[in-house]
Amino acid sequence: MSESDLINLLSRKGVSPWRARLARWIESPRIQWTTTAIILFNAILMGMETSPSIMADFGGALKLLDKFCLAYFVLEIALKLSIYRLSFWRNGWNCFDFAVVAIALMPGAGIWGVLRSLRVLRVLRLLTVIPQLRKVVAAFMHAIPGLAGVIALMSIFYYTFGVLVTTLFAEAFPEWFGSLGKSFYTLFQIMTLESWSMGIVRPVMEAFPWAWAIFIPFIVVATFTILNLFIGIIVSTMQELASLAEPEPKGNADLVATLERMEKDLATLKAKLKKDA
Amino acid sequence: MSESDLINLLSRKGVSPWRARLARWIESPRIQWTTTAIILFNAILMGMETSPSIMADFGGALKLLDKFCLAYFVLEIALKLSIYRLSFWRNGWNCFDFAVVAIALMPGAGIWGVLRSLRVLRVLRLLTVIPQLRKVVAAFMHAIPGLAGVIALMSIFYYTFGVLVTTLFAEAFPEWFGSLGKSFYTLFQIMTLESWSMGIVRPVMEAFPWAWAIFIPFIVVATFTILNLFIGIIVSTMQELASLAEPEPKGNADLVATLERMEKDLATLKAKLKKDA
Amino acid sequence: MSESDLINLLSRKGVSPWRARLARWIESPRIQWTTTAIILFNAILMGMETSPSIMADFGGALKLLDKFCLAYFVLEIALKLSIYRLSFWRNGWNCFDFAVVAIALMPGAGIWGVLRSLRVLRVLRLLTVIPQLRKVVAAFMHAIPGLAGVIALMSIFYYTFGVLVTTLFAEAFPEWFGSLGKSFYTLFQIMTLESWSMGIVRPVMEAFPWAWAIFIPFIVVATFTILNLFIGIIVSTMQELASLAEPEPKGNADLVATLERMEKDLATLKAKLKKDA
Amino acid sequence: MSESDLINLLSRKGVSPWRARLARWIESPRIQWTTTAIILFNAILMGMETSPSIMADFGGALKLLDKFCLAYFVLEIALKLSIYRLSFWRNGWNCFDFAVVAIALMPGAGIWGVLRSLRVLRVLRLLTVIPQLRKVVAAFMHAIPGLAGVIALMSIFYYTFGVLVTTLFAEAFPEWFGSLGKSFYTLFQIMTLESWSMGIVRPVMEAFPWAWAIFIPFIVVATFTILNLFIGIIVSTMQELASLAEPEPKGNADLVATLERMEKDLATLKAKLKKDA
Repeated sequence: MSESDLINLLSRKGVSPWRARLARWIESPRIQWTTTAIILFNAILMGMETSPSIMADFGGALKLLDKFCLAYFVLEIALKLSIYRLSFWRNGWNCFDFAVVAIALMPGAGIWGVLRSLRVLRVLRLLTVIPQLRKVVAAFMHAIPGLAGVIALMSIFYYTFGVLVTTLFAEAFPEWFGSLGKSFYTLFQIMTLESWSMGIVRPVMEAFPWAWAIFIPFIVVATFTILNLFIGIIVSTMQELASLAEPEPKGNADLVATLERMEKDLATLKAKLKKDA
Repeated sequence: MSESDLINLLSRKGVSPWRARLARWIESPRIQWTTTAIILFNAILMGMETSPSIMADFGGALKLLDKFCLAYFVLEIALKLSIYRLSFWRNGWNCFDFAVVAIALMPGAGIWGVLRSLRVLRVLRLLTVIPQLRKVVAAFMHAIPGLAGVIALMSIFYYTFGVLVTTLFAEAFPEWFGSLGKSFYTLFQIMTLESWSMGIVRPVMEAFPWAWAIFIPFIVVATFTILNLFIGIIVSTMQELASLAEPEPKGNADLVATLERMEKDLATLKAKLKKDA
Repeated sequence: MSESDLINLLSRKGVSPWRARLARWIESPRIQWTTTAIILFNAILMGMETSPSIMADFGGALKLLDKFCLAYFVLEIALKLSIYRLSFWRNGWNCFDFAVVAIALMPGAGIWGVLRSLRVLRVLRLLTVIPQLRKVVAAFMHAIPGLAGVIALMSIFYYTFGVLVTTLFAEAFPEWFGSLGKSFYTLFQIMTLESWSMGIVRPVMEAFPWAWAIFIPFIVVATFTILNLFIGIIVSTMQELASLAEPEPKGNADLVATLERMEKDLATLKAKLKKDA
Repeated sequence: MSESDLINLLSRKGVSPWRARLARWIESPRIQWTTTAIILFNAILMGMETSPSIMADFGGALKLLDKFCLAYFVLEIALKLSIYRLSFWRNGWNCFDFAVVAIALMPGAGIWGVLRSLRVLRVLRLLTVIPQLRKVVAAFMHAIPGLAGVIALMSIFYYTFGVLVTTLFAEAFPEWFGSLGKSFYTLFQIMTLESWSMGIVRPVMEAFPWAWAIFIPFIVVATFTILNLFIGIIVSTMQELASLAEPEPKGNADLVATLERMEKDLATLKAKLKKDA
């Protein structure tokens, strides 16, 4: 459900007029552009904060500006929440915006320190603010259900091999196959073909000479299925993006007109060909 | 031949009514769902069995549940065997089911211990039980015969280079090219581009400076042919799956069929006219 | 704007006749072929200059011939500048030619020594001189705007992860993630899947066991988006090149055009009917 | 030119009847199958000759059988030469056959020892004997001219970078960039992305921190162009192979008939749509 749909919903339900007006204002192009500009500015700020020398000189100013950006985002989400109330959560993009802003408000101690670093994900809000990018992401998402079969196949296959290699090699190679998690990581590495032979399979084959009979079928099926999945998504995405621009024909009258033009075309063709023959 | 075909066969041949009824019962959605659930449950069990800490606490219970699942599978296959008798073996999926269940019944000593680990392949029975996944696998299989030419080309090429590198480098690099088997493994590694240069070809070139003239053509042709093969299978598979997924339009079906025939006619016309031009 | 357009421009504006004649002469096939031959000859010269043994024997002669080639290029560009004046700069190919020739005229001391090595880029002038190659490059370029959405997505995603890994790992792994620049380089390496696990992520995971949760999503999204981008550009380029290469049929041209219009009509009809069904 | 064309040629030219009869006999399916069988048998022999233990036991017998196969091939080519005479060399497949058989007749001493190992390429004669494989290879070949532009682009680009990196890094890294040949090999390795960063570019960047500005553009353009080239060839090949099966329509009469059927189709469509409207 897009923002404009939400606005219509609001106006149809007879909500208080100030909420409808506020909704119209917050979805106006001017505010959208301001938000985009502030996200971009915040992205540059966060990039500068990674440099110790810049932080030594302008650290205070950067942190202040960063807080200003955060305040803007909090205000924006608070306003949207007060306008749309529960229907705010029905929109996936809103949930994403809420999550990346919430991360920045967490206390910065202990394990949370790591989580706070994720506040840079805020830059990804650009995907939710700029409609063109939103379309590209939506086109990706749209392609995934059509490939559910291949994804399920992949998961079953991956899980089976994960259990198998853990059972077989956990004792001899605890670092690579010590637990189901470690095996999944190592299989992912093998799937990307990174150091699969020199790094993993050759050492394993020194202890278990038949190990290639496990890993080579895995590599063939996994790389093939992954390639299949990726190409499937890419083709769907490209078709989806192409069809977003195409105009839609309306009514049966058009169709009849088209057919009539085709009849004329056919007559022309026949006349020409008969003359040639 | 699908299960439903088998049922029809049975009823047409005038088999005893209890066999026909049993066949209908064992192929009913309720039993299918039960089997699917038990396979999934068994998959989780086998995953848990890889963790030493869980095995220390609940090892007995897990093994008992595992045996219960196995008993279910054995019973299912025994029933199917008694119903379909020899025609059971005509269905490839049935043979696969029989093999993965049989593995689990093997004695767990010596070399058989390794083979018993393969009982986790039982999880792949999901592919035979869930019709959607069966279709995906069948679509893959369907694509292979059409690419027989490329596969044969690949095999001849691979075998030739295997013999060639064994003859040339077996003495100097016994670890990589000591026997035909080792050479095939090393060529597979080179084909995946893993450490081909730093790990294999640069050391070989220190002894035989002209070795690049063997390996670079191999890499170019092998990666190209493999890519060709994969893309060929993927394109065929996607077309196959698309044609399976497409709903049969009811109201306008005849019109669409007409249009499709016209499209073919047009293509023929255009080809002819362009050739004449 | 192509050279022939420039010539037309000149003649229409009523420029002095000698400029128009000079323009016609410099764009004539004979001069174009001479330039191509001199670029090729210069390319071979520069290849020979990399060999110390050839330089020891014929160094003087090679350098002299190289200077002759350079003189030809300078003269050619000087003439074009005097003919087209300011409109010279409106053509991207001209700007490229000017830049690669200008590099060779720089003083060869200090940091400029490195820049002077770039004079070999002069060989790339072949792309600007041979019309067929120019078309291939133009077809590539033509494909890029259509993929602006995917490129923007990629850039945002890449920048976000660059800042994130610098914040998280700069202190522990200064060599890989010490600054934003180093992180971008390392992420590019990870994106190409080179030594990503054995070389980078496994060492990082020894200090931060959760690091896979950053890198695996990065790898999946980055390789997928890059593949998407590349395939998108390739498909567009191939269509562009195919449409450029297709000969215009003379005799039956109108018939083919009619048939093509009919094909479009049919596609519209089919889409409409399928939607109705 | 295929064998059957050659036969026609012979018969038309009024050659002596025994030559025409011999040609018909040597191109008959029975002889073709015998040749195929002997090539396959020879391939297995050569595979067995790589095993020291088999050679110790049956070395003499294997070598004898190998010589018998070689004699068959020599006889076959001698016969073909006596039949087709000079037109033998007009067929690319014949030249290939001659070359791989000739290799085996070379003296086995010194540098020729290496060349003699190439006699295993004889297995590739399968590609020239089996018509289906010949078609696949011909379809590959057919795709290459259409991609001449991309191939030329690639070669120019590759040569330019070869000269550039030799000029810049030959002194500091003689093992990788010491000569034009070494640079081409290293660039090929980088193009396949094997150890490009950890193995080559990071060490180079320690001496020349700006080296990434040379290698990253190279990687992006090279992998992209190669992918482009491969996909281009694959798409062409698949179309070529698909079109080989399709029947060709003949004459204008068919076209008029097709158009008349289309007119009827159109009338049906119009009637249906008008009724619906």
